[in-house]
Parts: sequence; structure tokens; C-alpha cells
Amino acid sequence: MEKYTIGIDFGTLSGRCLLVNVASGKEVAASVYEYPHGVIEGSLPYGRKLPIDWYLQHPKDYLEVLENTVKKTLDEAGVKPEQVIGIGVDFTACTMLPITEDGTPLCMLEKYRSDPNAYVKLWKHHSAQPQADRLTRVAQERKENFIKRYGGKISSEWMLPKILQTLEESPDVYRDTYTFLEAGDWIVLQLTGKLMRNSCAAGAKCLWHKKSGFPSKEYFKAVHPGLENVVEDKLKGPVVSIGTRAGLLTEAGAALTGLSAGTPVAVAHLDAHGATIGAKVVSEGKMLVMIGTSSCHELMCREEKEVEGICGYVEDGIVPGYFGYEAGQSCVGDHFSWFVRNCVPSSYEEAAKESGCSIYEYLNRKADAKKVGESGLIALDWWNGNRSVLADGELSGLLLGCTLQTKPEDIYRALIEATAFGTRKIMETFAEYGVPVDEIIMAGGIARKNPFIMQIYADVTGRTIQIAGSGQNAALSSAIWAALAAGSENGGYDDVDQAAEKMGKLMDAAYVPDREKKRQYDILYKEYIALHDYFGRGTNDVMKRLKRMASEI
Amino acid sequence: MEKYTIGIDFGTLSGRCLLVNVASGKEVAASVYEYPHGVIEGSLPYGRKLPIDWYLQHPKDYLEVLENTVKKTLDEAGVKPEQVIGIGVDFTACTMLPITEDGTPLCMLEKYRSDPNAYVKLWKHHSAQPQADRLTRVAQERKENFIKRYGGKISSEWMLPKILQTLEESPDVYRDTYTFLEAGDWIVLQLTGKLMRNSCAAGAKCLWHKKSGFPSKEYFKAVHPGLENVVEDKLKGPVVSIGTRAGLLTEAGAALTGLSAGTPVAVAHLDAHGATIGAKVVSEGKMLVMIGTSSCHELMCREEKEVEGICGYVEDGIVPGYFGYEAGQSCVGDHFSWFVRNCVPSSYEEAAKESGCSIYEYLNRKADAKKVGESGLIALDWWNGNRSVLADGELSGLLLGCTLQTKPEDIYRALIEATAFGTRKIMETFAEYGVPVDEIIMAGGIARKNPFIMQIYADVTGRTIQIAGSGQNAALSSAIWAALAAGSENGGYDDVDQAAEKMGKLMDAAYVPDREKKRQYDILYKEYIALHDYFGRGTNDVMKRLKRMASEI
Repeated sequence: MEKYTIGIDFGTLSGRCLLVNVASGKEVAASVYEYPHGVIEGSLPYGRKLPIDWYLQHPKDYLEVLENTVKKTLDEAGVKPEQVIGIGVDFTACTMLPITEDGTPLCMLEKYRSDPNAYVKLWKHHSAQPQADRLTRVAQERKENFIKRYGGKISSEWMLPKILQTLEESPDVYRDTYTFLEAGDWIVLQLTGKLMRNSCAAGAKCLWHKKSGFPSKEYFKAVHPGLENVVEDKLKGPVVSIGTRAGLLTEAGAALTGLSAGTPVAVAHLDAHGATIGAKVVSEGKMLVMIGTSSCHELMCREEKEVEGICGYVEDGIVPGYFGYEAGQSCVGDHFSWFVRNCVPSSYEEAAKESGCSIYEYLNRKADAKKVGESGLIALDWWNGNRSVLADGELSGLLLGCTLQTKPEDIYRALIEATAFGTRKIMETFAEYGVPVDEIIMAGGIARKNPFIMQIYADVTGRTIQIAGSGQNAALSSAIWAALAAGSENGGYDDVDQAAEKMGKLMDAAYVPDREKKRQYDILYKEYIALHDYFGRGTNDVMKRLKRMASEI
Repeated sequence: MEKYTIGIDFGTLSGRCLLVNVASGKEVAASVYEYPHGVIEGSLPYGRKLPIDWYLQHPKDYLEVLENTVKKTLDEAGVKPEQVIGIGVDFTACTMLPITEDGTPLCMLEKYRSDPNAYVKLWKHHSAQPQADRLTRVAQERKENFIKRYGGKISSEWMLPKILQTLEESPDVYRDTYTFLEAGDWIVLQLTGKLMRNSCAAGAKCLWHKKSGFPSKEYFKAVHPGLENVVEDKLKGPVVSIGTRAGLLTEAGAALTGLSAGTPVAVAHLDAHGATIGAKVVSEGKMLVMIGTSSCHELMCREEKEVEGICGYVEDGIVPGYFGYEAGQSCVGDHFSWFVRNCVPSSYEEAAKESGCSIYEYLNRKADAKKVGESGLIALDWWNGNRSVLADGELSGLLLGCTLQTKPEDIYRALIEATAFGTRKIMETFAEYGVPVDEIIMAGGIARKNPFIMQIYADVTGRTIQIAGSGQNAALSSAIWAALAAGSENGGYDDVDQAAEKMGKLMDAAYVPDREKKRQYDILYKEYIALHDYFGRGTNDVMKRLKRMASEI
């Protein structure tokens, strides 16, 4: 009897359930369920208006994903519940919610259904910025050691600013909250009845460290007197390493999913960090780049290294036994779509239509006809700031080398090259600080669909670029973690490398760097770095001054 | 009986004849004649192919302008030939031709009609670049004093590279040439029978200086042995100051134009330099900016000053008795049309169409709704190199401060502001070297039709901007020079100031700088200058390196 695991990937707008054959890694069936409430912004479901930068979700939607996808996927594949030996879950983060002792989200209590702070705060909920600033300032004033691990800055997207916002704005909600929990951990609680926090989210989004734990009471007290006991009072449950078993499916969990009670459930994972295993990235020297609207770079190292401008590294953060490092570029696909929306003339749109291809394909084709350096253009890819190495959101984009002969495809190509230079700079910074990158594996829609861009990344980095083999890499990865949670005694795996090898996937074709193009890109990269350092390291802070001037208007 | 003068403005594609009332400056009638041969490129009229960068004209076209416009203009206005007391001519430069002793262009000889070097070389004829480079190199090697007046560089557009090209490529044409002449001086020769060279073109385009004359025989010999005697052999005729009378209309000239023999004819003028008088710019402290595809800045000073990066100043070059200075920006209207052609999305084009305005008007409106500094953008206006102050064609354009919120109108406005910053830099450089600019007068289509851009120039420079009152300012100026050539004894003028006052024109409305905007632009201008010096003065020569890399491909 064939054995399967279920991976469920909770994204921003929908949840995706994937059924995977444990022996072969074959993706047998999948089902997607869109959250009925989507992203809640503007106003609450019950009418109350929301200020800007509020982005909430309704936890009921997540339960409906479980109800509506798991059984359907099994039915479609003709697979019986007893053939499923494990369940794995990944989630966007920090997407968090306040719950009562029995696990009920506070927003589902009649009393709090009109209180925005009782809802799920989605990862991109940004209105806790003043709280984040205070947490940062106090950490710096107190010279807290932990802040160094985060590049000196606490993001408004993380857990503690979101909690502090609740304490300040809705003290009743704060008081009645048994614990605040990552939504991924809440799903695991629904399935297993066990309250725990996955090490990945705890480390990456909640200031936790495997050896030193959470920040001290003194620190939290200095931030806000009411926050003194936040760890013991409101961050209950042990931190458990990813890659392990959270527990077994309860009767209630079985009723919710249609699976058999007693099925092993994996500790939840973050969608980006957890996704390396699906692309066989489970050891040192390999970097997974998930290229989408923005890019995430995931890699690991046996040792703990402080790498310049790399925000957040977590022991047991990607694969147990390794320090997981994450870097990022805040503007990649967003960059290209900004360009297409704002800078492409109608003559190009018409020509694309006539030749029956998308505007992206048309631009690719025209840009591909040019040689490296032919346009004379170079760009800094900071349209949305710089997330890694410089870690400075106040930087902005630059385009240099324009002439009256400059064509739209030249600018488009310069923007692509700039994002590749940014990836190379991240890679070289890791190497410089002792975390080498020998291989690059890329995942995401752009990686699978855009050979032109991938070849540029190969030529710029001088690395062969392999591509994740699955179009639903995050869900596949969760299914692999599920097979590890099951263990060999249930027909799964005990060893991460083996699980990755059997169930992970890479596309057959790879992008091999062209030697001559690499040599020319080395020249351009040197120029990129000179501009990067000049504008990014304080010699000329014109970008920051202009942003400040703009924001003061 | 009312008295009139005729001004004829020879442009790149047509000649324009304007009849002006001498007492009031009223423009009574005008007529335009397009050159039948237009710009000759690709091949000669008789079939011979032309290499790239060859731009020729047929001198017969100029004669047809005289035949087809002067009489027609008079007829239209009901003015009799005897009411016309003077004729003035301005021409693009250096637009030059080889002629025989009787004034016949060599291309009109059967023998040479298939030789490209026998034709008129238009100002933008660029194929004498190797010759220009050689003339420059030898001047620098010999440390010739004259080269300083030209910013260290001889342009391929000027007279001597074009002559040397003829000597090298068509020695027969060179040998049979009685003299090479500016086309404007050739028109005067046709009208008066007198061979002379106007001081403006001789100084600005032919290395002539009022005190030291042309460069030495030794210099020319060092460039090419055959060029040793070029001045006495091939640059015959005296250099005569602009603003004076060249002679009287001959019978032949009368037959050509339909005017009366004996009518005074002014010394020819360059179209840009000559045009200040029409806008009443005839004294120190005033700068005329002709804003078109590129911009020319004309101003004058009683004293000779060496101003950094200002290429070409000529005694008696604009108004007799003054040193005339010219600066330039190589890319202004070209900049905006590059942007509209390459960077405006179809949604904007459609919206412009819907609101019934041109895309420029639509962009103006959207950009005008933004505040100074609101976009966070700044640009360097070097899409076509930097002509003045840095005088470096190898520089290129820069756009800094882009974000995902950047809109097309933001970029458009940043480009406009950059050209205004460029004008301010020119103005401040003149002042720094002792040539003050108290008032700015602007001329050209953009000046008359684009209040949004003009207001930015006022706010950036902190000067009230006045606008030339005539839409045909060059032709009007020639008509004023004609009235000066006539002199008071014929009903004209003896005094430049008086002639300018009576016949020159400014629009009533002026653009007054907004104090608060000026203050904010001061901040942006400081940033502009920092970038200008960093990229333009050798700290980071990335623009040149990228251009070299592009040109090597």
C-alpha cells in the first residue's frame, strides 16, 4: 500500500493542500481554498472602520481550508485516510492571533468581535510601527545583545510590536488573552491539541534564541511596565524545533480534516524557511533564492556567524542542527511590474499584442537581443529600500547611464541585472563572514518561467543556477516535513537528507554561467559596488535626505 | 510713408522671411519656403551613396528662399520695395560651402556634382570627427593659446574640420575652391557682391580672434602640410563685425529678391547669437536662453573672461562692442520627447486623449499637482552629455530616488527640474567668473507654450523669467540688424539699444519666482551639485567607463 503525506501551505489569500507520495515524491493531487474574508482592511466584517496599515485575517478561514481541501484532495486521488502517514503545515509569518486557554481566537468571542486587536494580524500588518520603534530604541539604549542578531532593528511585522499594540490599544483583549500564537502554531494546536511554538518563527519573528531564550523581563519592563511578564503570561508553550513531530491528530483534528486520528503532525514551519527541503537545500553551501515580488535567500551553516546586514538567523530555523540564515531583497518582481505599469510605451504593448506574447515576454526578447554592457546603463535595485547587507529601508532606486538612445528594454534589463547584482552582493557577504555559497537554487514563478532572467543570475553570480522542481514548493516541503514527523516506523523518514533526496525536486535543466558574460558582468558589478557603497554607506546620504524631504510634505 | 526691414532666417529645413515695421517693430507679414532638397543624407541628389554622419544641403535651395519669399511677403503686406530700407540674414552655423571666385558653389559645377565634399556641409554634418580630433590633438600638443577659448576641444561641426576633410578626401575640390564660406556669408555675397566673413561665425566656428586673428601657419602645417596656407588661400575675405552694414543690394540681388537695388544689407549673423536683439538682450547682465531640443544661453560682457567650461566666446560675437558668450545644454526638449516616446504608459496616453489634451499638457498637469521635493527624485540632465561647465560629451543621464510609488509624471518633472538646475549651474558659473546674470529672458516654443516649465525655471534660478515676444524671434532679430545696417539716414537706427527697444519684443507676463519654492529648490540644487561634481569631475568616472564599454561592443 502506497504511503502519502499531506502538506498544507497557508498563504496570504488562500490555503493549498498537496498530497505527496512518500516513496517517490510524486505530487498526486492538490486543492486550493481561498479565504472567504481574504485580507481584512478598510473595515472589520462587522463594520468597524480600520485605520491605514491595518491588515487582519479571520481564523475561521484557516479552519475552512482544513475542512475544504484535505478530504477533497484525498478523494480526487483515490487515496484513503489511513494511507496518509503525516501532516505538515507552513504559514506566512509573523501572522499571529490572541487565543483563550481552550484555543479559541478572541475575535470569535461575541465580546471582542468588534475589536480589531482581537483578530489575526497578518504578516504585513504595519500599524505597530511606533511600538516597533520603541522596542528597538529601548533595546539599543540598554545595549541588549539580542538586537545584534536582528541587524539592530525590530520590524513592525514581528510578534512583539503586534502584542504591544494590543496591550496599549485594547488592554481588555490583552488581559483576556491566554497566549498570543503564530497562526501556523495555532493550526498545529487545532490538529494535535498541543500548544507549542515552532523554533523558526520564535527565532525569526519573536526575538527567541536557542541558548538565551527570549529577552529579559527588565527589557520588556523598560519598554512598557505591563509587558514585564509577557513571556511567561502571554507567550506560553514550549519552543519546539522544526523538523520534529508536534503530536498526533486528535479526534477533533480528524473530524476537521477527514484524516485518521493518530496521524503524526509536524511542527509548523514558516513558508519561506520551510521551503528549502522541497528544493533539496538541506546542507551547508547551498542557497535557496525564492524569487517573487521580493526575494528571500535561505541558507544554513553549522556555526553561528554574525553576517553584516543579515537580519535574523535562527538555530534550528531551517533544518534542525543548523543555524538558518535569511537574507532578502525587498523589490524584485515588484520592480519589474512597477516598470511595466509605469514605463512601457503603448507602441511596445501593441507590438507585444501583435506578436501574441505578454509584455514581459516581449521585453525579455528585446532585452535578450542586447549584449552585456551594450546599453551603458547600471541601476541600484533599491526601489523598495535595501533589506540585506545595508539593511536600510530609506535607500531608494537609481538608474545611471541614460542617453537619448536608451530604450525601454535597456532599462528593463538594467533593473533585472541590478537585482542579480544584489543577490551576488548577498552571496559574497555571506562568504566573507564565513558562510559560503557554492550552489544556488531558485524557486518561484519567475524562476520557473523566465529563462532570460535566470541566465542573467547565472552570468552575474558565476554560479550554476538550479531551479526548484515543484510549482508548489512550499506545500511540497511541508509534505516532506510531514514524512519526517511520521518517521521510518510509519513508512516515512528519519533523516532530513534522505527525505529531501527522495521527495525533493529540481528541474533537469540548469543555467550555466557563460564565461565571457561573467567576465563582463564582473566589470559592471564593480561599478555597482562602488555606487552601492557610495550611496549606501553614508558617503552621500542624498537618498535619505530626499526621502525625508518627500515625507515631510 | 512707413518704413520696413526684411529679416531672413535660414533654418535646417526651411527659410523664413519676415517683414517688420521699423518704427513699431510690428511683424507685418511672413513667408516660409521649405528647401526642396531638405537635408541631404543617405545619397546625393545624383545618386551617389553617402556614409553615415554625412549631412549636406544644396545651395540652390537657399536662392529659392530668396526668390520665393521676399516678394511674396511684400505683396501680402501691400508694401512696396522702396519702403524696405534694409535686409538682414541669419543662418545655422557652421553650415559652409566651397565656392569659386565668382561665388558659384562647387557642387553646381558639372564636374563636381557627384562629389559630396563639393556640397554645403550642414552644421550637423559629423563625419569630420577624425579631422576634428587631429586639430584638437595638435593644438594641445603645441599648447596653442587659442584652444583655451574653446574649452580645449575643436568640434567636428566647425569650419576647419570640414575643410580638412575636403582636403583629404577630395583634393581636387580643395584645389579648385577659391574660398570656403559660411552659408550666411554666401547669401550676403549673393546680395551685395561682397565677400566677407561675419565676426560671429569666424569667432565661434572658425577659431578667429579679434586681436590675434586665425591660428598660425605653423599650427596648420603641423596638422596637415597642405593646410599651411589655408587662411590666405581658402579663408579669403575680411572678417567684419556683426551689427554693421555689409553693403548695398546689387542689381543681381535685386532681381533675386524683388527689392530695390541699393538697399542696405546687414552683415550675416548666426541664428542663435543674432537672436538676442529681438528679445531686447543687448547689454550686460541679461541672459537669453533659447530653449528647444537643446538650449543655448547667450550673454555678453564688456570684458574678456575665461569662464570654466564655456566653449567659445567671441568679441563682437553677439552685439558689437561686447564679448559674446555662449553656453549650452545638449538635451532639453529632446529630453522630454525621449521620455514621452520611451517611458509613458498607454494608460496615460489614453487619459490624455480622453481629456482632449496633448500628452505633454497631461503630464504638465499631473506634475504640476505635485509639490517641490514630493517625489523624492532628482536627475542629472546629461542624456546627451554635458555641453557647458563640464563640457564633457561622455557623461550620461542619472535618475535617483525611485520607489515603487514613483509615477511617470514624477520622472517627467525631475527631468524638467534637472534642466533648470543645469541652467542655474551655467548662470552661477558665469557669475563666479565675473559675468553676472541678473535677468533671464527665454525664447523658443517651450518658452512660449509651457508655463509649467517656465515657472520651474523661475523657481529654480530665483530670477524673474521674461519671454521673447515674437514667435519668429530669429527673423525679427535679423530685421532689427537690417534696420541698424540701414542707419538713421535711411529711417533706421544707429544705436543698438534704441533699435532693440523700438523693434524688440517681450511678452507682457513674466514668471516670478515663488520664495518658498525657491528655498526648497535650493536644497535640491545642493544635492544636484554634489552629484554633478561627483560624477562630472572625476571622483567616479562610471559614466565614461560604461559609455566606453558600450561603444566597444
